[in-house]
Amino acid sequence: MAGLARGAGLRAELLAVGSELLMPQRAETNAVYLTARLREVGIDVQARTTVADDLGVLEAALRGALARADLVITTGGLGPTADDLTREAAAAALGRPLHRVPETVAWLEARFARFGRPMAPVNLKQADLIEGAVSLPNPRGTAPGQRVEVDGRLLILLPGPPREMEPMFEEQALPLLRARSAGRVLLTRVLKIAGMGESDVEQRVAPIYTRYANPRTTILGGPGQVELYLTAEAADAPAAGALIEELAAALRAAIPGRVFSEDGAELPATVAALLRERGASLALAESCTGGLLAARLTDAPGASTFLDRGYVTYSNRSKVEMLGVDPGVIEAKGAVSEDVARAMAEGARRSAGTAIGIGITGIAGPDGGSPEKPVGLVYVAIAGPAGDSVKRAHFPGDRDRVRHQATQLALEMLRRGLLQLAPL
Amino acid sequence: MAGLARGAGLRAELLAVGSELLMPQRAETNAVYLTARLREVGIDVQARTTVADDLGVLEAALRGALARADLVITTGGLGPTADDLTREAAAAALGRPLHRVPETVAWLEARFARFGRPMAPVNLKQADLIEGAVSLPNPRGTAPGQRVEVDGRLLILLPGPPREMEPMFEEQALPLLRARSAGRVLLTRVLKIAGMGESDVEQRVAPIYTRYANPRTTILGGPGQVELYLTAEAADAPAAGALIEELAAALRAAIPGRVFSEDGAELPATVAALLRERGASLALAESCTGGLLAARLTDAPGASTFLDRGYVTYSNRSKVEMLGVDPGVIEAKGAVSEDVARAMAEGARRSAGTAIGIGITGIAGPDGGSPEKPVGLVYVAIAGPAGDSVKRAHFPGDRDRVRHQATQLALEMLRRGLLQLAPL
Repeated sequence: MAGLARGAGLRAELLAVGSELLMPQRAETNAVYLTARLREVGIDVQARTTVADDLGVLEAALRGALARADLVITTGGLGPTADDLTREAAAAALGRPLHRVPETVAWLEARFARFGRPMAPVNLKQADLIEGAVSLPNPRGTAPGQRVEVDGRLLILLPGPPREMEPMFEEQALPLLRARSAGRVLLTRVLKIAGMGESDVEQRVAPIYTRYANPRTTILGGPGQVELYLTAEAADAPAAGALIEELAAALRAAIPGRVFSEDGAELPATVAALLRERGASLALAESCTGGLLAARLTDAPGASTFLDRGYVTYSNRSKVEMLGVDPGVIEAKGAVSEDVARAMAEGARRSAGTAIGIGITGIAGPDGGSPEKPVGLVYVAIAGPAGDSVKRAHFPGDRDRVRHQATQLALEMLRRGLLQLAPL
Repeated sequence: MAGLARGAGLRAELLAVGSELLMPQRAETNAVYLTARLREVGIDVQARTTVADDLGVLEAALRGALARADLVITTGGLGPTADDLTREAAAAALGRPLHRVPETVAWLEARFARFGRPMAPVNLKQADLIEGAVSLPNPRGTAPGQRVEVDGRLLILLPGPPREMEPMFEEQALPLLRARSAGRVLLTRVLKIAGMGESDVEQRVAPIYTRYANPRTTILGGPGQVELYLTAEAADAPAAGALIEELAAALRAAIPGRVFSEDGAELPATVAALLRERGASLALAESCTGGLLAARLTDAPGASTFLDRGYVTYSNRSKVEMLGVDPGVIEAKGAVSEDVARAMAEGARRSAGTAIGIGITGIAGPDGGSPEKPVGLVYVAIAGPAGDSVKRAHFPGDRDRVRHQATQLALEMLRRGLLQLAPL
């Protein structure tokens, strides 16, 4: 794939510490937060590493990062247990001793006293500071952070829990970093597109974006969505924004009406805003998606202004009883059919008395498919004041992907209807 | 936190290559797959790094990993573009030249010919092999992998796309690694608990698990769920399994009826299996969770055997019309109240004619809270043949966490009811 814009700013590396982060069942989320915040001040992360609670490995990883980067931020390993080794490893990597700070000891003792708990002696090591470092107070936990500069390289140690780490980074690291990277900003805008395949989008936009070296463009495809990442580098945010807007305008013109979001909003939020704007009320009738569309639309607050109700009609009987679907139609056409999708949408609209009704029926798999009606076959119907529209789709992928793509299709159909764009 | 079992086996590091993997919007998934598969043959990953497409940084990261580990596996950066630099960086890190392999050139030409496309000259570098390396065929793509051994350290280069990388790892790397780590297996079992806080679980189980050095235990808390990771090391899987079972039995006894899963299943799957087993039918009435419980229960296939229908009653009117909730009760007690939760559960059960009805009403936030009814307040009611049960909870965290915890509470209440365990 094409590379992303990397300029002459600070070279940064992130180091997450903790054996549990290396378990296959766990994800490391601090790096995502830090990467996003650093880009705001023009700092690009060139590598991020997750390291086990092992003094030797951790020290070697720190040495490596400090040799390659101008800025190294660690998260985790600052607690009181024997496995918390970031302080010791950093001191060793820098070749500097640790000193116990009496003020921090007093602060720790006061904190424990305030919660009426005795302080175990193991906690004392949280008061150890690398020689020459500045202690970073942690008002939300017991482990203070540290900041130390050696030969023009900056090392910042932060605790692992996001609710402690994030405000400390925000208040005690970001202002400093902003000052250092003055005159350089990296800005990324993501253009999101639903209802088109990746290669289809690529074919239409590649002749445009390949003409630009700055912003640089990356195209990424996922289930039911394609995203164009536009990254510009400039002296300040307005200048970077102007570079991005010029290219974005050209891309939008190449795929008219197709970009649903440029501000990070996902499709449910975009559609929710449109529904609120228009004062349109909505009722949902979901079969194969089993409430997923309702859950996605109510994921953000404020859905009560447009979403009156949802029906999860998993059984044929519930389609008949709740939505008034004609049992003869289910018999004749099958529950997964254009007619049933349409009857579900109309039934939801009628029984709820809303402006719009949506019906979704399909075969999410892995079972239940047949040669005529394979796994992945989905019908989406929208009933509104101006009549009905129905779309048949055959989605690739597993159950999760089929269900997700079905909700994407319903939302994009609804968006296009609300904006009176040409139907899909 | 307590460390995880690390023994005397091969020390492994993973290196994912690609600037796009360092964008805040992207996740790196190959590491999760490789970590899980390596543990099956007793190999623990001590560090994993994601590196930008930058020759200098990549070479330095490879040098670091090779200095610390016995086994280094890279993914990505083997394609034909100028940004694909893993081969060159690995050759430089090992101090060995690259040679173009005529057989691979011929294979590439044949592959392009088969698809009727001309081969651009840039593709030739995919035929470059590090001196002393073994080429690893890639039947699903154009980029072959490489395996090279230097001073007893093994470096394996694999392509980035999972559908190419995973079978190559499985067929061309895993057998070799299994042979090298013969006589050592790492096994992890996760005991999952809902409806109890982390410190409450910790207090009851710590006196037990701290007596065991093998298996080692790690406790991790998330919203609405606590997990105990038990990792054993032994000569083979049955021996490791026996070590784990002994400790698991002692832990289960300390928190009777609380562990809902030991096989990786999440709470919705556990409850779905119970409902199927008992032949119990279910109807859901969701307000603040907006279909999330229905979506979680239908996430896995087979929900149609027990889930008859779901009502997403976002408006007061829909609660009255769909579920027969008395408007006087909503007026007197408010939509978020024990009485309304109970009436929703009973209404769902009655109108659907199912064995069990669930009602959830609450304030997910961020708006809508008051001193008497703060954000996070949720009532869950279950109506069944033996009568009703209602539980009031006040959940911490943001909208997502409140909604997720509300569904966890409903599922755990249902699980305990089905198993006739003491109510929460």
